[in-house]
Amino acid sequence: MQNEEGFRQQLLALKQDRQQGASELARLALRILADSALHGSAGDVDQLRDLLRLRARVLMEARPSMAPLYNLLRRWLSRLAELDAPDVEGLRRGAAEAAEALSQASAQAVKEAALHARVQLTGKRTVMTHSLSSTVLEVFRQLRGSDTRVIVTESRPLNEGFSLAAKLSRWGIAAELITEAQMGLFVKAADAAVVGADSLLADGSLVNKAGTYLLALAARDQGLPFYTCCESFKLRTPEMAEPELEEMAPAELKAPDLPGVEVRNVYFDITPPHLIGGWITEHGPVRNWTGQL
Amino acid sequence: MQNEEGFRQQLLALKQDRQQGASELARLALRILADSALHGSAGDVDQLRDLLRLRARVLMEARPSMAPLYNLLRRWLSRLAELDAPDVEGLRRGAAEAAEALSQASAQAVKEAALHARVQLTGKRTVMTHSLSSTVLEVFRQLRGSDTRVIVTESRPLNEGFSLAAKLSRWGIAAELITEAQMGLFVKAADAAVVGADSLLADGSLVNKAGTYLLALAARDQGLPFYTCCESFKLRTPEMAEPELEEMAPAELKAPDLPGVEVRNVYFDITPPHLIGGWITEHGPVRNWTGQL
Repeated sequence: MQNEEGFRQQLLALKQDRQQGASELARLALRILADSALHGSAGDVDQLRDLLRLRARVLMEARPSMAPLYNLLRRWLSRLAELDAPDVEGLRRGAAEAAEALSQASAQAVKEAALHARVQLTGKRTVMTHSLSSTVLEVFRQLRGSDTRVIVTESRPLNEGFSLAAKLSRWGIAAELITEAQMGLFVKAADAAVVGADSLLADGSLVNKAGTYLLALAARDQGLPFYTCCESFKLRTPEMAEPELEEMAPAELKAPDLPGVEVRNVYFDITPPHLIGGWITEHGPVRNWTGQL
Repeated sequence: MQNEEGFRQQLLALKQDRQQGASELARLALRILADSALHGSAGDVDQLRDLLRLRARVLMEARPSMAPLYNLLRRWLSRLAELDAPDVEGLRRGAAEAAEALSQASAQAVKEAALHARVQLTGKRTVMTHSLSSTVLEVFRQLRGSDTRVIVTESRPLNEGFSLAAKLSRWGIAAELITEAQMGLFVKAADAAVVGADSLLADGSLVNKAGTYLLALAARDQGLPFYTCCESFKLRTPEMAEPELEEMAPAELKAPDLPGVEVRNVYFDITPPHLIGGWITEHGPVRNWTGQL
C-alpha cells in the first residue's frame, strides 16, 4: 500500500526537480499516478477514483510553468472517467495502464518532433541552443556522425549546460560552451538556434528557461533562424490560466547575503511569437502561428 | 631604481586585472609610467625618453579593448615629446607630473560624466545596469538618499556584480541581483538602463562587458531608454585599429573539462549605435551620434 506520506515525498521531488524538463516531469507525474493507482490505499472503486482524481489535481498544479504536466494529466483524468471497472483491482490496472500509454505517447511525440527538427537543421553547420531540453537533446543524438557543431550556454544558476556539453562530448559532437552573457557574440558564429519549450502559450509565445528571450532577440537582430522544438502537449490551451513564471531559491545563485539586496531567481521567460522562426512538433514545422500545431 | 623585472610585473598585473574597468586601468598605466619616470634606470635624458616611450607603447597595447589606455598614454607621449627638460632629474619630474595631471583629468572627466548621468536619471525609479563600471558606480554614489532602486546582474564569469551589490548595500541603495539570463525579464521592471564603456567606436558603437548587447536589445524591444556613461577618453579615434575583443582564461567559467568541448570566455561585446538612446560624457548627453562627444 502506498500511504499519503509516500505520495507527499513524490510530489516534493517533482516540485524541487531542477534537472528534468517539462516532458520528463510530466511522465514522472504519470508514473506517480500509476503507482498511486496500483498501491494507493482505497476500500472500493469510489474511494480509489476520489484518491486518484485528488492526486492528479495536486500534481497538475505542482509546476505551473509546465504545460505538459497539465495536458497529460487532464487527458489521463478523462480516461479515468471513461474507465468501466467492475472492481478495485480492475480500476487499479486500468488506471495504471492508461498512465503508461500516455507516457509512451508523450515520449513518442518527443522523438517525432526531434526527427522533424533534425530535417530542418540538416546542412546547418553550427547550431546554438540554451538550457537543457530533452527534445533538443534527442535532436543532437540524431545528428551524431554529421559535422554539426553545437554552441551550448552554461545556463545559470545550476549550469545544466554542463550536462548537455557532457552528452555531446560522449557522442563525439564538437561543442563550444559559453556564458549566457556571450550569446550575442556567438550568434554571429551560428547558422540556426534551436531550443525546447516548457510551454507554448495560445498565441504562440514560448515559455522556456530564462535567457531564451535574449537569444531570440540576438538571433532576430542578426538574421539567424530561431526554432522551438517540442511535442504538442506543450501547448497551453486558451482555458488554462496565464502561466506563473516559477521563482526558485535565491541560494542557487551563491551570491553574498547583503542587507537591502534581494537575490532573484526567476526560471522562465517568455519569447513573443514575432521572434520565433518556426515551431517544430511531432506534426512537423509550423512557420506562421495559427493557434494550431 | 626600477628595474625591467619590476616593470614586467606591473605590466602583467595590468594585463591580468579583471576587477577594474578601463578608466581605472588607464590611470594605473599612468602611475606605472610615473613610477618608470621617477625610478627607471637611465644614464641620460635620451636613454630615459627611449625607455619611457617604449614602456608607454607596451602598456598601450596591453588591453586592446580599452580605449582610454591608448588615448591617455598617447596624450602623455605628446606631453613627453614637448617636455623641455635640461637634465635627467628634470625629465623624471616633468614626465611624472604629466602622468599625474592626466590621471587627475581622467578622474575629473569620470566625475562630470556621472553628474550628467545623474541628471538624466533623476525621476527614474528603477535603474538597471550590467557589469561593474567605475563611472556608473559614481552615478549611483551620487544617487544615494534618493529613492532610486538598482537592478544588478551578477556578471559572469567573475561576478563583479556581487561587488557592485555590496557597494549599493553599504550606501543604503535598494538593489535586486539577477543572473544575466534574467535580464530580459527584469527590463520590464526598470525605467532606464545605464552601463559604462570600455571603448566607444568611431561610429558610436559601444564596446563593453559581454552581455551589454543583450541588455540593449531587450531595452529596445521593451521601449526602455538605454544609456552609456563614460568620459570622452573612451572614444576610439578613426586611426585606431578595430578593437580585438579580449578572451580570458576558460578556467574562469569553472566548467568541466570535456573532450571535444571548447570553453569560450570572450569578455566584451559590441552594441551598435541604433540600440543606444544616449551617450553621456563629461560634456553632457548626446542623443544622436555625430562622431563627436
